[in-house]
Amino acid sequence: MKVSIIGSGNVASHIAKALHHQKVVVQSIWSRHFENAKDLAHKVDAKAVAIIPEIINDGSDLVIISVKDDVIAELAQQLVGYKGIVAHTSGAVDLNVLNNNEQFGVFYPLQTFSKQTELNFAEVPVCIEASNEEGSTILNQLATKITKNVYTVNSEKRKTLHLAAVFACNFPNYLYGVAQQLLAKDGLDFEIIRPLIKETAHKVQHAFPANVQTGPAARNDTHTLGKHEGLLQDNPNWLAIYKLLSEQIKKSK
Amino acid sequence: MKVSIIGSGNVASHIAKALHHQKVVVQSIWSRHFENAKDLAHKVDAKAVAIIPEIINDGSDLVIISVKDDVIAELAQQLVGYKGIVAHTSGAVDLNVLNNNEQFGVFYPLQTFSKQTELNFAEVPVCIEASNEEGSTILNQLATKITKNVYTVNSEKRKTLHLAAVFACNFPNYLYGVAQQLLAKDGLDFEIIRPLIKETAHKVQHAFPANVQTGPAARNDTHTLGKHEGLLQDNPNWLAIYKLLSEQIKKSK
Repeated sequence: MKVSIIGSGNVASHIAKALHHQKVVVQSIWSRHFENAKDLAHKVDAKAVAIIPEIINDGSDLVIISVKDDVIAELAQQLVGYKGIVAHTSGAVDLNVLNNNEQFGVFYPLQTFSKQTELNFAEVPVCIEASNEEGSTILNQLATKITKNVYTVNSEKRKTLHLAAVFACNFPNYLYGVAQQLLAKDGLDFEIIRPLIKETAHKVQHAFPANVQTGPAARNDTHTLGKHEGLLQDNPNWLAIYKLLSEQIKKSK
Repeated sequence: MKVSIIGSGNVASHIAKALHHQKVVVQSIWSRHFENAKDLAHKVDAKAVAIIPEIINDGSDLVIISVKDDVIAELAQQLVGYKGIVAHTSGAVDLNVLNNNEQFGVFYPLQTFSKQTELNFAEVPVCIEASNEEGSTILNQLATKITKNVYTVNSEKRKTLHLAAVFACNFPNYLYGVAQQLLAKDGLDFEIIRPLIKETAHKVQHAFPANVQTGPAARNDTHTLGKHEGLLQDNPNWLAIYKLLSEQIKKSK
């Protein structure tokens, strides 16, 4: 199987490298900045192309479009005439934005990617969806080469998944940041709290979050809740977050 | 060194087991329910005692009080006359609630404990504070036997740490629960999002959260934010959380 890639950001780079690592040929790479395409192409033995239509007859079976949500449709348009499968990697974009292409699909890796962080792609869940049976089979085969977690998820459910990911990833990370700033104000190193963050995520790997909820709100420990609110008086935003989340935790018990 | 323990809950149990595992003698264990004291005592070769004053002359160097915050002072009172160190394990309670005891301190493990989850105590940060030099040395020695992460933290800073722990642990866990429920409503298994939770915590082990923040709010992707808010219309509480946290993430960029 040969794959071409449109995009050179975090997701595109991680997919390209995972494919290359598993001996899947990465054929062409296009990026808005040709230099970035060249950099990534160099890493995965691919060819950087200057314009998207060069991909149409490059011999690839599949093009993965991994770019900002709002330009997916427009870039896919430049692949009209391509006989293979055109798949985007977005959690929030409908399959049908690609319906001017002959065969199309979605290849959505449910993970948080950073350029600086290496990760084991074999653990990354990949959610696939396709416009036809053949596309589904091919996307499945491709995903299986780089991960052991492949799910078939339609556009509707993928949107829920994307929303859930905000609650499971983006919001917790923001709250880690609040913790870090609270500690820093008192001259305490973030290092002291890192094991707690790790264990909190570890605990729900084999349990449901509701069953392992701890803390003053879960115990309805109004004395501690009051003291914490007192400590947050100089930051109304963090206080608002503290009150809202504590209230919800209390209600959920 | 010999240690006695008041309490038999999650924290008490994990400490008792970690001490026993490191060949520190656990002398006596008292619990509000004698049966619980016996259960734990059995696991760590200790003696269950029916009343606290039995500990006063049991030959231990140290008593660890690991009970609900609001009964610490009252139980410590029953140890008046004890010559060793009396230390509580609370993040939120001042050192001075123990000042009727001769020597006193704090032995606060900054971790989330569940009875069902085993954990490697060697990774748990323990924050100590003591009423005198000797107490500080002894608590330090004891902590060093069961963990490689020992910090000296005064009562003031310990309160900040406790508050930060709510943001770093209790709130993220609640949000994992929201994600789980969103997925369940659409028939999606929580399993699909567990690797994302793990990686999110993993990323900040070597980075600051603000530097690895991702998601629609971080990108100020108003289109996706609007779609997500639409999906949350039937749950005003989750919608309020979504809006508040997204707003804060946007401001922090």
